[in-house]
Amino acid sequence: MIILLRNDVPADSLKKIFQRLHQMGKEYRTYEEGDRRIIAVLGAQYRGNLDSLEALPGVEKIISVSKPYKLVSREFIKTDTVIVIGGVPLGGTHFQVIAGPCAVESEEQLLTIAADIKKAGAAILRGGAFKPRTSPYSFQGLEEEGLKILAKAREITGLPVVTEAMDVRDMERVAYYADMIQIGSRNMQNYPLLKEAARTKKPILLKRGLSATLEEWLLAGEYILMEGNRQVVFCERGIRTFENYTRNTLDLSAVAAIRELSHLPVIVDPSHGTGRWQLVAPLAKAAVPVGAHGIMVEVHHRPSEALSDGEQSLTPHNFRQLMEEIDRLKAVQH
Amino acid sequence: MIILLRNDVPADSLKKIFQRLHQMGKEYRTYEEGDRRIIAVLGAQYRGNLDSLEALPGVEKIISVSKPYKLVSREFIKTDTVIVIGGVPLGGTHFQVIAGPCAVESEEQLLTIAADIKKAGAAILRGGAFKPRTSPYSFQGLEEEGLKILAKAREITGLPVVTEAMDVRDMERVAYYADMIQIGSRNMQNYPLLKEAARTKKPILLKRGLSATLEEWLLAGEYILMEGNRQVVFCERGIRTFENYTRNTLDLSAVAAIRELSHLPVIVDPSHGTGRWQLVAPLAKAAVPVGAHGIMVEVHHRPSEALSDGEQSLTPHNFRQLMEEIDRLKAVQH
Amino acid sequence: MIILLRNDVPADSLKKIFQRLHQMGKEYRTYEEGDRRIIAVLGAQYRGNLDSLEALPGVEKIISVSKPYKLVSREFIKTDTVIVIGGVPLGGTHFQVIAGPCAVESEEQLLTIAADIKKAGAAILRGGAFKPRTSPYSFQGLEEEGLKILAKAREITGLPVVTEAMDVRDMERVAYYADMIQIGSRNMQNYPLLKEAARTKKPILLKRGLSATLEEWLLAGEYILMEGNRQVVFCERGIRTFENYTRNTLDLSAVAAIRELSHLPVIVDPSHGTGRWQLVAPLAKAAVPVGAHGIMVEVHHRPSEALSDGEQSLTPHNFRQLMEEIDRLKAVQH
Amino acid sequence: MIILLRNDVPADSLKKIFQRLHQMGKEYRTYEEGDRRIIAVLGAQYRGNLDSLEALPGVEKIISVSKPYKLVSREFIKTDTVIVIGGVPLGGTHFQVIAGPCAVESEEQLLTIAADIKKAGAAILRGGAFKPRTSPYSFQGLEEEGLKILAKAREITGLPVVTEAMDVRDMERVAYYADMIQIGSRNMQNYPLLKEAARTKKPILLKRGLSATLEEWLLAGEYILMEGNRQVVFCERGIRTFENYTRNTLDLSAVAAIRELSHLPVIVDPSHGTGRWQLVAPLAKAAVPVGAHGIMVEVHHRPSEALSDGEQSLTPHNFRQLMEEIDRLKAVQH
Repeated sequence: MIILLRNDVPADSLKKIFQRLHQMGKEYRTYEEGDRRIIAVLGAQYRGNLDSLEALPGVEKIISVSKPYKLVSREFIKTDTVIVIGGVPLGGTHFQVIAGPCAVESEEQLLTIAADIKKAGAAILRGGAFKPRTSPYSFQGLEEEGLKILAKAREITGLPVVTEAMDVRDMERVAYYADMIQIGSRNMQNYPLLKEAARTKKPILLKRGLSATLEEWLLAGEYILMEGNRQVVFCERGIRTFENYTRNTLDLSAVAAIRELSHLPVIVDPSHGTGRWQLVAPLAKAAVPVGAHGIMVEVHHRPSEALSDGEQSLTPHNFRQLMEEIDRLKAVQH
Repeated sequence: MIILLRNDVPADSLKKIFQRLHQMGKEYRTYEEGDRRIIAVLGAQYRGNLDSLEALPGVEKIISVSKPYKLVSREFIKTDTVIVIGGVPLGGTHFQVIAGPCAVESEEQLLTIAADIKKAGAAILRGGAFKPRTSPYSFQGLEEEGLKILAKAREITGLPVVTEAMDVRDMERVAYYADMIQIGSRNMQNYPLLKEAARTKKPILLKRGLSATLEEWLLAGEYILMEGNRQVVFCERGIRTFENYTRNTLDLSAVAAIRELSHLPVIVDPSHGTGRWQLVAPLAKAAVPVGAHGIMVEVHHRPSEALSDGEQSLTPHNFRQLMEEIDRLKAVQH
Repeated sequence: MIILLRNDVPADSLKKIFQRLHQMGKEYRTYEEGDRRIIAVLGAQYRGNLDSLEALPGVEKIISVSKPYKLVSREFIKTDTVIVIGGVPLGGTHFQVIAGPCAVESEEQLLTIAADIKKAGAAILRGGAFKPRTSPYSFQGLEEEGLKILAKAREITGLPVVTEAMDVRDMERVAYYADMIQIGSRNMQNYPLLKEAARTKKPILLKRGLSATLEEWLLAGEYILMEGNRQVVFCERGIRTFENYTRNTLDLSAVAAIRELSHLPVIVDPSHGTGRWQLVAPLAKAAVPVGAHGIMVEVHHRPSEALSDGEQSLTPHNFRQLMEEIDRLKAVQH
Repeated sequence: MIILLRNDVPADSLKKIFQRLHQMGKEYRTYEEGDRRIIAVLGAQYRGNLDSLEALPGVEKIISVSKPYKLVSREFIKTDTVIVIGGVPLGGTHFQVIAGPCAVESEEQLLTIAADIKKAGAAILRGGAFKPRTSPYSFQGLEEEGLKILAKAREITGLPVVTEAMDVRDMERVAYYADMIQIGSRNMQNYPLLKEAARTKKPILLKRGLSATLEEWLLAGEYILMEGNRQVVFCERGIRTFENYTRNTLDLSAVAAIRELSHLPVIVDPSHGTGRWQLVAPLAKAAVPVGAHGIMVEVHHRPSEALSDGEQSLTPHNFRQLMEEIDRLKAVQH
C-alpha cells in the first residue's frame, strides 16, 4: 500500500496520518521524491480498512500494491517511466543502444571506439574505469584517469557516458564524470552502494546479480527509489546456471517479466549474457521483440588485444551490421 | 573423424579398412544410412596419419570432427539439414509453427483447436496422448484413443501431427499414427527410447532435458543418427534454474549455439519455457531473430478448463495475433 | 487422504465406499498391497467430512496426508520401513554399505573386487551390466553377460547384488539375476520403467534425478508404491549446479529431509556425488551423522584402468580404511 | 609462482630482482606480511627459468603455485593455518563452535543467548548489528548500538564476538568492537570491502557467495591476503540451486575441497545452509567428519519472535543437545 500525500500537507495532518497508522498497527516507511512525500505501508497488501485514510487531509491518493516491492511496481505507477540520460530518453517507446569497450584502456582506444559506435548509431557510450575483477591479479581499470577519458570522449562525440562505481567513496567522483552510474552484478545487493548511488540523483543502471531472482532484483531497485531517485534502468546480463557453453544464461523471459511487473525500463547485455561474440548479435536482436528498451553491447576495435572480455566483444564492423538489423526489427515492433 | 564409404564398397576393401584401423589402435563404430556405410572413428580428432586411409579403395572421403558428437556436428555436414514432416519442410530457410493443446482431451477439443490453429497459419498440430506426469495422480493422457483423435484431426485439417512417445513398447503404435515423434525432456537420456524412436524412420522432435548441457543434448541426438535416422529436430524448452517466476528459464542462446554446432534444425517451445501465457508471445517472437527454425506453442480454446498446462496456453485469439507478429518478424530476417 | 480397507472387505461394502466418494465429488485411485486394498483420495488433504467414511463397513482406518505424495509419506506410515535385500536388512536402525565397480568389466575384475569389499565389511555388491552413457561411443556395459557375472559373484561371496535396469524389455532378466534393481538418475522420471521395475516385486534403488526436487523424487517413488511394491530405497547422488570442481553437488540436506518426509530408507552415493576419489571418504563419513541408512561407493582394484568412472573409485585399500572410520562414527550415533 | 624474500633484503637486491623479472617479461605483484616482503609472479605456473632467481641475494625461496590463487593455496603453505580469534584458536586441529542470534535485537536478548551458548560450550558469539536485507522494508539491524551490546556480551561472558560489516565507512567501528569481521555472502565479491576489512588486521570470516565457485571464493580470499592479512576463515553457507525445500543447498563437498586446496580454515553454517531448524543439527554434525574446522549456528531463546531467521534458529535446549553430539563425533575423528 502506498499513500501519496499532497505537496502542501501540513505538519499536523501528517501527524494525524501517522497516528492513525499506529492505531491500526501498521508499519510504514516514508520517503521524499522531489517535494512530494510518500508513505509505503508494509504488509498491507489489500486496501481493507485503510480506505478511511483517504479521507484524511493531506492524502491525495492510496494505491494498493500487492508485491513486496512497492515503488518500482507497476501497481504503483501504471505507465512506463522514461529515464533521460544526458539528454537521451530511454524507456517507454524509446529504444537505445549503449556500446563501447569493456574497460577504458587508453585515450586512443576509447576515442577510436566511441567514434565508431557513434557513426553506427549508438546513443550512449559505455566503458569501465573501475573494474571488479574475480582475481586480484587481473587489470583493475584506469580509475580516475579512465573517468577523465570518458568525459573527453563525451565532449568529442556528444554521447552521454555510463560507467561502473564499485566503492561508496568513489561515488561522488563517478557521478561528476558520468551521465549514468552502473551498479554491477556483484554489487546488486551491496545496499550502501545502492543508496549512495541513488543520492547522486543520476540515472542508475542496475545489473541483475549472477543468481538474483526477479524479486530480489526489483527489491534492489526499491532501495534506490526509497532514496528518492526514480531513475533506474534494469539490465539483464545473464544468470549463472549449469550450462557452460555460454558464460552465463541470458534470461530473456526476465525482460518480458520486468515489463509486466515494473514501470521502469529494462535493457539487455548480450555480451556478458553469452560471453561469445558469435552469439551476441542473435541475442541482441532477440531483445527487440521480447520488449527490451535497449541493449548494451561491448565493442572493441582490436578484440584480441582487449585487456578484458575480448572474446565477447564485437568489432566495429560487426556492430554496424547489428545496428542495421536492429533497426529493421524495431520497424516492425508496434 | 568420419570415414564416408562409397556405396559399392566391396567386402574385402571394407575388411582392409577395418584391419588398418585395428593396426592404428583406433576404436570405431559403423552405421548405415540408406545404402551408404559410414565409419565413426573415436578419439581421432585430428586427421593425423589417417590421411593414408583416404587412398584405400572404397573410401570416398574423410571428414575431421573435433567434437565428441560426430554425425550431428556441422563439421560433418556443412549445410543445414531440412526435415520433411508429413510433407512440411522444417529447417534451413523453412520456419514452421507447431501448435495445439498440451494434451488431447477429447475429439471435440482437438478438432476445435486444430481448426483454429490451421486458420491462423500453423503448419503442424501437436497434442499429447501419452503424458509423462510428475504425479501418478495426475491425468495420464488418453493413450491410443488420443492417437486416433490426432489422426482424425490430421485427416480433417491436413495438418501433420506430432505427439510424444514414452514407452518403447508403444513406439510402433505412435509411429503408425504420428508424422513426428516427440521425445520429452524427462526422456532425453532414455537411450533405449531414443534408439527405438530412431528405428521407426520417422522425424524425431528431441526436447532438451531439464538440466542437459548442449553437449549432452547433441549426444542424445547422436544416438538417433547412429541408428541411421538423420531426421532430428532439437527443441529448446527451458532449463531448470533457481528462478521461479517462470516455470523454466528459456535458454535462447542455446538456439544460436545449436545453429553453429549442428546442421540439424532447432525450434523453441516458449510455453513450457516460461509456464505463463503472458510471456509466451514475447518469447515466441524472440525465437525468430535468434535463428530458430520454428516454434511450438500450446493453444487451448478454454485454457482454464485444460486438463494440463492451462496457465501456459494461448487462446486461439492470442495465437492469431502472435502469428501475425511472427510473420512481420520473419519478413525482416534475411 | 488414505483409506485403509480391511482384508476381508466384501464387494458390496467396497461399492458403497466408492459411491460415497463419488457423491462427495472426490477423485481416488485404488491399489493393492499383498492381500490388502488401499484407496488414495486425491486433493482431500484434510479429513473434513470424510470422517463419516470411517463408519462404513470394510474401512479399517483413515489417514490424513497433506502432501502430494501419499504412500511414501511419513504421514501415512509413521515408523521407518526396513527393506530386506537378499537377506540384508536396510533402513530403520540398519545401516549398510553397498560397494563395487561402476561397471562389470570381466569375471576376473568383479570377483576380485567382490572378495575385497566383502572382506572389508560391505554388505551388498554393486556393478553395472547395462550402462546409460552420455555418448553412444562410450562402453555400454556387458549386458546379460554382466548379469551372469554378478550372479556368480553372489554365489561365491554370498553378497546380494544390485544392478541397473534401463529398458522395460530387460526388466525380467535383470530381476532374475539381481537382488535389488537400480533406477538410474537419467530414468528417475521414466514412468514405464518405474512401473515395470515395481512389478518385479524386487527392492528398488531409486536414484535422484540430476535436477529433481525432493517432491519430484518422492513422487517417482509413489509411482512404484502405487504398483503395490513398497520396497523403495532412495539414493542421493548429487544434483547439478553451477559448481564444476565436483562432478555434482552432493545434497546431504536432502537425506535429512527425506528422513522427515518419508518412512522409506535413504542412502548416499558419494562417488557420483563428488566425482573425485579424494572427496569420497569425507562425504561418505558425513552421510552417517546426517542420518543416511547406508552408502554406495565405487571401488575398483585398478582405478586408472576402469572402463568408466575410474577417477571417482576408491582402491580396496582406501575402502577398507573408510569402513573402519564409518564403524567408529556409527558407534557414536544414537 | 611466489618469491619469498629475506627479512633483510637490501633495496638494491630488490631492484635487481625486479629488473630480472622485467627482462623475463613477467608481471608481478608485491605485498608485505609483517616485516617480510613477498612477490607473486603471475602466469608463471612452472618454475621454468625462474630457478635462476633463487640465486639472487635477498631471495629466500621460490614456491611453485599452479592455481590462479597463490597466497591462499596449499601449494604455497603446506601446513594448516591456525587463526586466533580473541584468544580462541581455529583451524588445524582446533574445531570451534560459533553461535548466537541472527541479529542483535536488544541487550536482554543477546545477553540471555550469550550466557546460554557459553554454558553449552560454544567458543565464539555471533550476532548481526548491520543486516543486509533483501527488502528495504525489513529490519536493518541496531547498527552501532548492536556493536556495543556485542562488546558488553563479550565483557560478561568472555566469548570473543564476530559480526558483519557491510560498508567500508563502518569498518573501523566494527573492527573496534569485534574480534572477527564477517563478510557476508552478498559481499563476497565486494572488493573494496574485502580490502578495507583486511586492513583492520582482524581475522575475517569470509562467507561463500550465493553462487560462487570454489575458485571465485578462494580468489576473494586472495584479495584479503594480498593486503597482508592472512587471517581468513572460509564459511560454507549453502549455494543457490533449483531445490526449494531448503533455503540453500549446503555444499559439504566444498569443505573437503577447501581443505585440499587451501591452508586456511573452513567452517560450516548449517542455519543459512538449510533454512530449517530441524535440518540444522544433522548437517552441523555432518560438518565434523567432512573435515570442517567449526560450525556457526543460529540460536535464539524465542525463535518465533526473532526479528530475522527465526525458522532456522535452534533453541538453547536443542543447541545443548547438538553440542553433546558434536563432542562425541569429534572424539572419533582422528
